[in-house]
Amino acid sequence: MSGDSKLNRPEYEALLKPLGKELVSLSRWVGEKGKRIVVIFEGRDTAGKGGSIDMFARVLNPRQCRVVALPSPSKREQSQWYFQRYIDHLPAAGEIVLFDRSWYNRAGVEKVMGYADEAQVEAFLKAVPEFERHLVDDGIMLFKYWLCCDQSVQELRFGNRLRNPMKRWKLSPIDQQARLHYDAYTEAREEMLRVTHTDFAPWTLIEFNDQQVGRLTLLRDFLDRVPDTELPLAEIDWPPLDHEPSKERYSVLQPLEPYKLPDEIEQRDMIHSWD
Amino acid sequence: MSGDSKLNRPEYEALLKPLGKELVSLSRWVGEKGKRIVVIFEGRDTAGKGGSIDMFARVLNPRQCRVVALPSPSKREQSQWYFQRYIDHLPAAGEIVLFDRSWYNRAGVEKVMGYADEAQVEAFLKAVPEFERHLVDDGIMLFKYWLCCDQSVQELRFGNRLRNPMKRWKLSPIDQQARLHYDAYTEAREEMLRVTHTDFAPWTLIEFNDQQVGRLTLLRDFLDRVPDTELPLAEIDWPPLDHEPSKERYSVLQPLEPYKLPDEIEQRDMIHSWD
Amino acid sequence: MSGDSKLNRPEYEALLKPLGKELVSLSRWVGEKGKRIVVIFEGRDTAGKGGSIDMFARVLNPRQCRVVALPSPSKREQSQWYFQRYIDHLPAAGEIVLFDRSWYNRAGVEKVMGYADEAQVEAFLKAVPEFERHLVDDGIMLFKYWLCCDQSVQELRFGNRLRNPMKRWKLSPIDQQARLHYDAYTEAREEMLRVTHTDFAPWTLIEFNDQQVGRLTLLRDFLDRVPDTELPLAEIDWPPLDHEPSKERYSVLQPLEPYKLPDEIEQRDMIHSWD
Amino acid sequence: MSGDSKLNRPEYEALLKPLGKELVSLSRWVGEKGKRIVVIFEGRDTAGKGGSIDMFARVLNPRQCRVVALPSPSKREQSQWYFQRYIDHLPAAGEIVLFDRSWYNRAGVEKVMGYADEAQVEAFLKAVPEFERHLVDDGIMLFKYWLCCDQSVQELRFGNRLRNPMKRWKLSPIDQQARLHYDAYTEAREEMLRVTHTDFAPWTLIEFNDQQVGRLTLLRDFLDRVPDTELPLAEIDWPPLDHEPSKERYSVLQPLEPYKLPDEIEQRDMIHSWD
Repeated sequence: MSGDSKLNRPEYEALLKPLGKELVSLSRWVGEKGKRIVVIFEGRDTAGKGGSIDMFARVLNPRQCRVVALPSPSKREQSQWYFQRYIDHLPAAGEIVLFDRSWYNRAGVEKVMGYADEAQVEAFLKAVPEFERHLVDDGIMLFKYWLCCDQSVQELRFGNRLRNPMKRWKLSPIDQQARLHYDAYTEAREEMLRVTHTDFAPWTLIEFNDQQVGRLTLLRDFLDRVPDTELPLAEIDWPPLDHEPSKERYSVLQPLEPYKLPDEIEQRDMIHSWD
Repeated sequence: MSGDSKLNRPEYEALLKPLGKELVSLSRWVGEKGKRIVVIFEGRDTAGKGGSIDMFARVLNPRQCRVVALPSPSKREQSQWYFQRYIDHLPAAGEIVLFDRSWYNRAGVEKVMGYADEAQVEAFLKAVPEFERHLVDDGIMLFKYWLCCDQSVQELRFGNRLRNPMKRWKLSPIDQQARLHYDAYTEAREEMLRVTHTDFAPWTLIEFNDQQVGRLTLLRDFLDRVPDTELPLAEIDWPPLDHEPSKERYSVLQPLEPYKLPDEIEQRDMIHSWD
Repeated sequence: MSGDSKLNRPEYEALLKPLGKELVSLSRWVGEKGKRIVVIFEGRDTAGKGGSIDMFARVLNPRQCRVVALPSPSKREQSQWYFQRYIDHLPAAGEIVLFDRSWYNRAGVEKVMGYADEAQVEAFLKAVPEFERHLVDDGIMLFKYWLCCDQSVQELRFGNRLRNPMKRWKLSPIDQQARLHYDAYTEAREEMLRVTHTDFAPWTLIEFNDQQVGRLTLLRDFLDRVPDTELPLAEIDWPPLDHEPSKERYSVLQPLEPYKLPDEIEQRDMIHSWD
Repeated sequence: MSGDSKLNRPEYEALLKPLGKELVSLSRWVGEKGKRIVVIFEGRDTAGKGGSIDMFARVLNPRQCRVVALPSPSKREQSQWYFQRYIDHLPAAGEIVLFDRSWYNRAGVEKVMGYADEAQVEAFLKAVPEFERHLVDDGIMLFKYWLCCDQSVQELRFGNRLRNPMKRWKLSPIDQQARLHYDAYTEAREEMLRVTHTDFAPWTLIEFNDQQVGRLTLLRDFLDRVPDTELPLAEIDWPPLDHEPSKERYSVLQPLEPYKLPDEIEQRDMIHSWD
């Protein structure tokens, strides 16, 4: 969650907050109506897939919302039907599944880096619209986002990862290759869009040169495309306790000594909630 | 990530940052050495399990670090060996698995709410130390955290959820019951600790009356208990591009119109990264 | 493996034997070439699906050949994409999967018994040819057999199950209903055939009024439709042992007392292999 | 199902039949009472594991009774807890699971062939009694059979596989090695028995020099060790059809031409059931 932006952090959070509320409302609707939602996040390395997924995952119930980030396929999986291991993670009623990369790997990194041959990519592109139509016909709500950024921005972000030990894990050997193939990725994307941007399962491209703006754009679009999800909040009967609130009591094991704060903070009273 | 705290947000983040760096370093060590880590998060409703898990998940690679938050067992699962559906999610080499609640459900909510009978709870308590020793003997690093808070704090947080539509999803019918059984949960926890706080798989209790301090305490403890994980950062060869950086080019589909910012922001130039 | 037949058992087995050899040869070819085979067995209750599957399973390596007989879907599975739980069992390279009933349940028992509504059946019939084409395009060899028998034969076999405690498990409450809907099943089958008997994934109907002849017919057809699978048997170097063959020696536990044979047999020497 | 035996086939089948009836009765009891049964088949190569498993599988409902024959572990599985991939297949209520080889691989083939090192075998032998006690304490009925045969018999059977194309698939490169390590297998078995033959999960050794007698011995033992499973057969209301039985009618597709029988058989009428 960093980078150059038109927004400073408080501004960003102020803008995000009402969208978050709508997202929570939507998730309640998904749960109560038994809807199933799939959101695919594809895009340039460094564009901001991870941060966008976090934006969803942080406000949603982890029992309702799953992130699917599959590792490389095993040898056995490689010999199976290409879609098989993704299908395994499709949502049941009331669930929202966020795919951090997806079956589109085949038309992206696998094509550009030569892990899949021409015939495999073609077969994939032929199959994918029908495959997605099956999901949509079955009632799954499918959203496909492709996160764009210019190479100058990508280079800055790669540089940041290179120098920042916190982010170094994000730099894989594939990234080293990927930056040299920026244009090949563009081409692959355009070819992919040509056949997989369909009426029933359209793509949405979103510019992530400014990640904060990009995330707001993505979430606003997602919320606008789901039909009215306003549900009255359930009435909850919430009587006061009929006794003094209890305190923790420990007989077997004491809690850990709390983290040592700087002295001037340590002596301070609690301060009011900052969120 | 809210509530009363001794820390304001910038202070909290300043304290968290160096711990985050250590966590990333640790995750690299886990990956390169093929270690396997399981972290169990148990505790009071509202104590702060979700926020603590986020603290890990946000800095770790989603392909390395999985959150496991199992739904209620199906009827078929209920008839299987109790541990079976949890075992399915144990880590392979290089993986970190965060359990948002765990097999300890049986000695907590299931016991207090009567979903499991006496005999089942006893059988569970008898089995669990051996079960965990098997994992530990096999080389899995197992961390068990129980997040504590006083009932007065819990009541405030429940009230907050009740009034805040963003957080209403966190209020389940079970919560309504749970608050009435605060003391029963205490008792159940103590009994559970008595038999499952073992040399090879000890519990750590952490006070979460102040959630920011609680999270710092937990992460500091976790980092301290893993042996020295300093690994030199891999040298990465990163030559400059040999051409002007490319720009995104769109032939099939244009990116979405960006989110409309307030006018005064819209006209502003990018500002420097705030993270 | 019983019923009225034109063949007595020795005749049947003499005819089956060479086909079994071809099947084994085919399985070697599947393994060495990394082929994937799916065989679907559908048909009338009592027609003989189980016996036909046994005919395959008995001569094939259980590590290569799996039988898939799914139980009723759980509630969660019912809310998922209809094909999802079947897809999970599709073969990897070198595997042969035998489906004892299959996704066609939806157009058969589920339709006739009213477990699926009109819209669901229609949606299924629309989806299935494309779904199967995806598998076939991906290189999976797909065989679909529907086993037929007249109602008079079915009634005899039901009667046999009713009276024979060994076979009573085969009589489910659904069977009781099914016999009353013989004609509805016929109609459902014909409608299903009309849309799912395709060039790339044709059905084969086989008459099982005579089960022995039915099985021979099915296996002969299957073998004829797979391209030439003759592979030379691998040379195996098999030197004689360089010592007297060892005998079992038991120090911890003795073998169980063998089953008590009738006296006249007990005293007899081994007799020559009967297979 | 071949080899030298004291029994000819009709004799064997006559003796097997009543045991099969009891097995079916037992399976009804398992289903109605929601019991869970695991049967482990271990033993010498060629001893007769496959045939023994068939003996069960052929009379049991495939929706109730599963055969588990796991392939070699993937690299990812190799790094997981050793028991994990077996646990995945443990039975739910009403199910019978037959393990064609099992977790005992580690103390057998893996030890003898050097796939597991000393420390791994020791760790396994230490863990397995507790692991099995967990299953047994949980109510799973666990049966462990080890099928024995003398090397002279094994050599004859290997030779048979070598010469018989139908059986050649049973000859793996490991077999070639295994025969040279007959005594090492004996030793490994005895060491394994010493620690894993427990009160709650005892082993049963069965001599399979005569496979027919071996199978009868095994099944008799299994049946004797399950408590009285006699349940009255459910009354089934079975009214006669109220119309002439229907015949198959085909509008879309005709059944396949039946397998061409030798002329003298073709012209014959149906003969009476031979089973």
